[in-house]
Amino acid sequence: MKGVTLIQLSSALAFSHALMNQVVNPGDHVIDATVGNGHDTVYLAKLVGTTGHVDGFDIQPAAIAATTKALTAAGFNHQATLWQTGHEHIADKIAADEPIKCAVFNLGYLPGGDKSIITKPTTTLTAIKAIQERLVTNGLIILLVYAGHPGGAAEAKAVLDYATSLDQHQFQVLQYQFVNQVHVPPYLLAIQKR
Amino acid sequence: MKGVTLIQLSSALAFSHALMNQVVNPGDHVIDATVGNGHDTVYLAKLVGTTGHVDGFDIQPAAIAATTKALTAAGFNHQATLWQTGHEHIADKIAADEPIKCAVFNLGYLPGGDKSIITKPTTTLTAIKAIQERLVTNGLIILLVYAGHPGGAAEAKAVLDYATSLDQHQFQVLQYQFVNQVHVPPYLLAIQKR
Repeated sequence: MKGVTLIQLSSALAFSHALMNQVVNPGDHVIDATVGNGHDTVYLAKLVGTTGHVDGFDIQPAAIAATTKALTAAGFNHQATLWQTGHEHIADKIAADEPIKCAVFNLGYLPGGDKSIITKPTTTLTAIKAIQERLVTNGLIILLVYAGHPGGAAEAKAVLDYATSLDQHQFQVLQYQFVNQVHVPPYLLAIQKR
Repeated sequence: MKGVTLIQLSSALAFSHALMNQVVNPGDHVIDATVGNGHDTVYLAKLVGTTGHVDGFDIQPAAIAATTKALTAAGFNHQATLWQTGHEHIADKIAADEPIKCAVFNLGYLPGGDKSIITKPTTTLTAIKAIQERLVTNGLIILLVYAGHPGGAAEAKAVLDYATSLDQHQFQVLQYQFVNQVHVPPYLLAIQKR
């Protein structure tokens, strides 16, 4: 047995980044449907580069402010447009014929923010459907689904039920989940257009 | 939108190979708990190299013959030992103090063989437990779980129930599963020792 470093299984968050790396290329148009503190917005802006673009959505002013700051610090503010509105309005902001390569959702509440302001099943599903209509072949919707907070379990069930019901000839749906954790970690859903 | 090739989500089988690539290094001792037609035995033998070793188990003579042939064709027959016995006898064949880096199970029946000869819940769990006792820190047990054949659903439930019950301080358990397929594809379980 060699004394090499052994690699641990990726968390759902780390796996979401691995999927973005696989799918997103320079020049792509992508969506951060829940910018939060801007971590994924910056991650996506780096991947799409100066020839691509990120449209980011969040209903909370604090999230828009934090993400603006993060994008500016990284030098990516020309590669992203932030919309201070709920992601259920994606269809109003993104043209119907504008292709989307990848979209990312971090469901639940804003980390460090007001935990009573949470994403909700109906608006989350509206956003997913708007993105599905614009998704290119092999394009990917990635959802990090948190079920541990009040309201989280209902949203997780609604999203999983919807994803499970998708026609396998149009989309394939992967669930990546740690199943023996007491404190309900997020699981990942990846919806890929065929 | 660039005209680049887009990558599809990995199947459970392809993901199992990605995990083996991450975890298994030259010199390692690993187990193929269900050699079948020898595909994973050869894959593992290549990863452990001439300084490592694969112990392979299968109850069916046809599987041992096919795997012997595959190992010989690949030039790896000195890197593997095949045991024609059920994997519930792993504890009789592998010393209690012999560390294991990785073990792979392909549950169900032998592809191309007698579909009435299938792996079974009690013997599968006996094998998993024997390997757990020998698994090194960050070592990995990978199971491809087929639930679509007669008897498969009961085994899948028993294995998932057992894996889900494992103490999260000792093992983390990942499930990788396509959830919208009509024809029950295999799902992957990965049990990693902490």
